[in-house]
Amino acid sequence: MSETRTEIASLGEFGLIEHLTKNFETHNASTILGVGDDAAVIDHFGKQTVITTDLLLEGIHFDLMYTPLKHLGYKAVMVNLSDIYAMNATPTQITVSIGISNRFSLEAITEFYEGVHFACEKHKVDLIGGDTSSSTKGFVISVTAIGEVAPEKFVKRSTASKGDLICVSGDLGGAYLGLTLMEREKKIYLENPKIQPDLENESYIVGRLLKPEARKEIVDFFEQNNIVPTAMMDVSDGISSEILHICKQSALGCRIYEEKLPIAEDSRKAAFKFGLDPTVCALNGGEDYELIFTLKQEDYDKITLNEDISVIGYMAELEEGCKLLTKGGNSFDITAQGWNAFQQ
Amino acid sequence: MSETRTEIASLGEFGLIEHLTKNFETHNASTILGVGDDAAVIDHFGKQTVITTDLLLEGIHFDLMYTPLKHLGYKAVMVNLSDIYAMNATPTQITVSIGISNRFSLEAITEFYEGVHFACEKHKVDLIGGDTSSSTKGFVISVTAIGEVAPEKFVKRSTASKGDLICVSGDLGGAYLGLTLMEREKKIYLENPKIQPDLENESYIVGRLLKPEARKEIVDFFEQNNIVPTAMMDVSDGISSEILHICKQSALGCRIYEEKLPIAEDSRKAAFKFGLDPTVCALNGGEDYELIFTLKQEDYDKITLNEDISVIGYMAELEEGCKLLTKGGNSFDITAQGWNAFQQ
Repeated sequence: MSETRTEIASLGEFGLIEHLTKNFETHNASTILGVGDDAAVIDHFGKQTVITTDLLLEGIHFDLMYTPLKHLGYKAVMVNLSDIYAMNATPTQITVSIGISNRFSLEAITEFYEGVHFACEKHKVDLIGGDTSSSTKGFVISVTAIGEVAPEKFVKRSTASKGDLICVSGDLGGAYLGLTLMEREKKIYLENPKIQPDLENESYIVGRLLKPEARKEIVDFFEQNNIVPTAMMDVSDGISSEILHICKQSALGCRIYEEKLPIAEDSRKAAFKFGLDPTVCALNGGEDYELIFTLKQEDYDKITLNEDISVIGYMAELEEGCKLLTKGGNSFDITAQGWNAFQQ
Repeated sequence: MSETRTEIASLGEFGLIEHLTKNFETHNASTILGVGDDAAVIDHFGKQTVITTDLLLEGIHFDLMYTPLKHLGYKAVMVNLSDIYAMNATPTQITVSIGISNRFSLEAITEFYEGVHFACEKHKVDLIGGDTSSSTKGFVISVTAIGEVAPEKFVKRSTASKGDLICVSGDLGGAYLGLTLMEREKKIYLENPKIQPDLENESYIVGRLLKPEARKEIVDFFEQNNIVPTAMMDVSDGISSEILHICKQSALGCRIYEEKLPIAEDSRKAAFKFGLDPTVCALNGGEDYELIFTLKQEDYDKITLNEDISVIGYMAELEEGCKLLTKGGNSFDITAQGWNAFQQ
């Protein structure tokens, strides 16, 4: 936080919008008209437009006690871009709406927009509109992302076939372990504010939680290597939940090999430290924002080029169910214990 | 409210989405893929895409004490469609995100979606996605609307010319008077719950507040009569605030005639009853969701065909300022006393 505190009411809504958006430049030729009118105008002739939206609420999706506002702005954009990439599309524009109580200064909201700006620059996405409002309590964020894709090149969840390989990018469980760590440190701090947080050697899992990256390079890799996944989605609720979505919507079952689940060494160490099973963290932890996708078996050679992609199983008949095959040779039904916003 | 109460947690997030969206059908050929994937896909070949978004927060934008949830769902869509029409565009798709605390039952949220559904049916708009989340407190609504417009036919705020006529659809101040009435009745009720609300003969202003209509027929009239306004926006914050936006963005001044401001007879009566000046209500009251637009003088004959359009003034040089000319022959600077979410 900076030292001065400017009340937002001193600018008014339109002064605030001007202040927050003045450094945003447009990157996409399709952005015809951006911030400052009733609506934005985009031109996607010859491409199809992809739209997604996410709501982030203080106390539900983030805790400002350990979430810097700049990271929050970055993450609010990333979780939406992740949905666009999960369609095999390229994000081009976003709208950002915020509801803020008078507890937030202009400096605080400016930090949030610095994170939004950083995300936009990194992914060459244009901020084209939004809404700013006061809120009675808490910080409300709603982001909508728009992208483009060549006709019929978008990838749904419902189009996997029996025998397709199930693949995942990056590694799993890190964000959940980061959350576990931060919640533990918060509890210690609340009990005794003199104890400083012990985050040493935990930068990997903390980064996975606070600064997720939408996997643009995976979609770029598909394009460069002429790969079109048969089904795809992003990993936000936990991979067991996502696998069940793909199976249900494709009317198939699956087999997942525990030993193939990609787990970073830092995540594995953290799990043991907290007395958690790394496999359970990888399966049920949310917010990794990796991509899970299915692939025709004949495309296997193409993906071996990419060390950041793991094959974790294959699609099976519906009647065979959705099973995890453990290292010990056992077989368990996969259940969606992923993060569910209504069962906290 | 219906008699049974179903807890939302009993369905889970995805069960809830299925339940709420099962009756929504698509109307637009441009809707390639709707609810149920990471993102929706729309195809606007040959047309430009128009996007707008609005956040509605309980306690700031609506009071559930006098706002039926079905009306709220309808209004949440309308305020966004209004922004699309204000671009001279046709709305085609919406996304709806909600954050709800456990105070809301499934029946309550279903009522909200009935209002959303009714608005979609009436304007032939497709619900293509959204997000559902729990909230710690209060009801959070975020709607994004998407529309289409023939290339370069969209109308901005910044393109009015000196001498252009300033026009407004419908009448003004009604929604503000409806809000004044409801706030008065709420206060009486809270002081003595035995006193029943006295809303007799007030259905016009109450309807203006609780069930606004986005002005599709005005945009249709433009199309049928080959009219393209030189600038346009919708009346959400109050017409004096909107006029100042058009003047500022077009770098011009204006003259508005008090006697030309369209005020419904029911609104006028209500204003006198509450001891308010009808002109002030018309100028500064928000949420009428009418369209204010500017027009070349040679198009005047075309709009005389439409009794629902009033000419209220004209655009002047920047140096002449923005003035209201009163019935009594006085001239006042127009100031934006419109609704400002940060100065409550």
